[in-house]
Amino acid sequence: MKLATLPGSTPDGRLVVVSRDLSRAADATPVAATLQRALDEWQSAAPKLGALAEALESGSAPSARFDPSQALAPLPRAWQWLDGSVFESHGKLMAEVFGIDDPPRDKPLMYQGMSHRFYAPTEDVPFRSEDDGIDFEGEFAVITDAVPMGVTPNQAASLIRLVAQVNDWSLRAIAPIEMKTGFGWIQAKPACSMAPVVVTPDELGGDWSDGQVGLNLRVEWNGQWFGEPNGRAMGFSFPELVAHAAGTRDLCPGTIIGSGTVSNENFREIGSSCIAERRGIEMLDSGEPRTPFMRFGDRVRMEALAADGSSIFGAIDQAVCRSA
Amino acid sequence: MKLATLPGSTPDGRLVVVSRDLSRAADATPVAATLQRALDEWQSAAPKLGALAEALESGSAPSARFDPSQALAPLPRAWQWLDGSVFESHGKLMAEVFGIDDPPRDKPLMYQGMSHRFYAPTEDVPFRSEDDGIDFEGEFAVITDAVPMGVTPNQAASLIRLVAQVNDWSLRAIAPIEMKTGFGWIQAKPACSMAPVVVTPDELGGDWSDGQVGLNLRVEWNGQWFGEPNGRAMGFSFPELVAHAAGTRDLCPGTIIGSGTVSNENFREIGSSCIAERRGIEMLDSGEPRTPFMRFGDRVRMEALAADGSSIFGAIDQAVCRSA
Repeated sequence: MKLATLPGSTPDGRLVVVSRDLSRAADATPVAATLQRALDEWQSAAPKLGALAEALESGSAPSARFDPSQALAPLPRAWQWLDGSVFESHGKLMAEVFGIDDPPRDKPLMYQGMSHRFYAPTEDVPFRSEDDGIDFEGEFAVITDAVPMGVTPNQAASLIRLVAQVNDWSLRAIAPIEMKTGFGWIQAKPACSMAPVVVTPDELGGDWSDGQVGLNLRVEWNGQWFGEPNGRAMGFSFPELVAHAAGTRDLCPGTIIGSGTVSNENFREIGSSCIAERRGIEMLDSGEPRTPFMRFGDRVRMEALAADGSSIFGAIDQAVCRSA
Repeated sequence: MKLATLPGSTPDGRLVVVSRDLSRAADATPVAATLQRALDEWQSAAPKLGALAEALESGSAPSARFDPSQALAPLPRAWQWLDGSVFESHGKLMAEVFGIDDPPRDKPLMYQGMSHRFYAPTEDVPFRSEDDGIDFEGEFAVITDAVPMGVTPNQAASLIRLVAQVNDWSLRAIAPIEMKTGFGWIQAKPACSMAPVVVTPDELGGDWSDGQVGLNLRVEWNGQWFGEPNGRAMGFSFPELVAHAAGTRDLCPGTIIGSGTVSNENFREIGSSCIAERRGIEMLDSGEPRTPFMRFGDRVRMEALAADGSSIFGAIDQAVCRSA
């Protein structure tokens, strides 16, 4: 099934079930007022939401047109957002460009990001300065149930409830300064955006395998093709990322765990899902980056398409603007 | 006023106002069901909570004995926890011991920590392995109202609503490995604990000045004195930490911002609030650390005392145990 969040009486909005083709939405609040609530009560809520999704597909459930421009992030706020960086082609390129050691390969790279706000897929995203190096990062992510400390990847796989698509906004002028401290990112990682719809893994069919999302993520910047890498090139699978995250802590329902910027070895042909990667390629190929970061008013669009061209999560399609 | 959280029907518990001497508690749920709710509605809630606190002091409000062993963390979960490390004596010592560059001084060190769980002040804290280097870190912290992106420290000062006392549990065998990645800590920083009571800054009187907490934090490990450093030695004040945290993001009400482990220049006399610091001193003085990290069954007690010996926040007093 596919789920989304429309504006409601609280910051968490109200839950709707969305049709497979993203055209219709049915009120799911009789089952669970919000997506967080559904995740908190997944064992009882999921079968009811699934039944509602079936009724929506068959036309037997009351529904309204689903307008992605009205959607909030599926989780407008979450208790936890942990973002990996596990596409090896991206990691190797960045290490080469910046002359840093290749990170150890026995554990995934992961940082704790802010989670009290996820931008809606079409709202303007405010930044203070173009000088901060405004960049997008197209990612896939999973949303978990409660995960006990110390689970194995196999156990973690059974606790992945939903798959999401995320834009991890990044400020590249600040990132290396904060990385040098060893404390990770604060100012370099403001709030992320989420595509309008999250889906249960079964919605992906064969495109969910080995704990990875085998979809192309098509990225456009100001209407121009920027890249279309595939999600199936992760050095660590999502279940491995969940197990790593739960290494010394319990995870609560609604924990969001990201893949890091989607990247493929043939990035010179297939393009990139962040500007930093393209700039890195330019630095290797011609000694200096030519592509600037984003300016106020620029738009980015990110959408994952199935083989038949249908949109899985709907599109992130939004502009950056100067903060008030 | 002083506020605490007792078990309730949700993970957020139920709000009580606590008497200045920590002996009595009055039900505050008619004003706000939870501390998070009070923070979400601070302008309207604070005067009513203040009136209840006055009535409690004068004996005119219905109340019950306040039992800290029943208290949850004041915020049993929070939308955001950002922890600084701004006691310079600690930073300089750690840099010297581990041969790392002194961090830049123009910005505070800060990491994003997990916030979906804060342990109650007296509950057992589970860890998977003694080999991970189980350590405590005694800290002060502030809890903010909504803070807009880009505030000045002066503006931030007026948005600090509460002061708290935190134990930032740390796993020292993992910390340096994660620091080397530049991504910050995940496994090295499991959930923190909070002292039973949070207080408005005015409760500290002259011990809240220049945006710092001028209280000694007395730390005992298995009943033995371990240290009693004072909170007034921060290289950056709490308002500066809040402004840094809000540099590129809005903060939501209930954001918790920590000082980092409390440390004073004369740590050889006054002791430390974490084992890592004592071990660092031992390494400098005798070439190797002699003090081991914590073992299962060990207890740590942390309490901030006013000049008259009264307890401000109540005590964190808990044991570590092997996770199930």
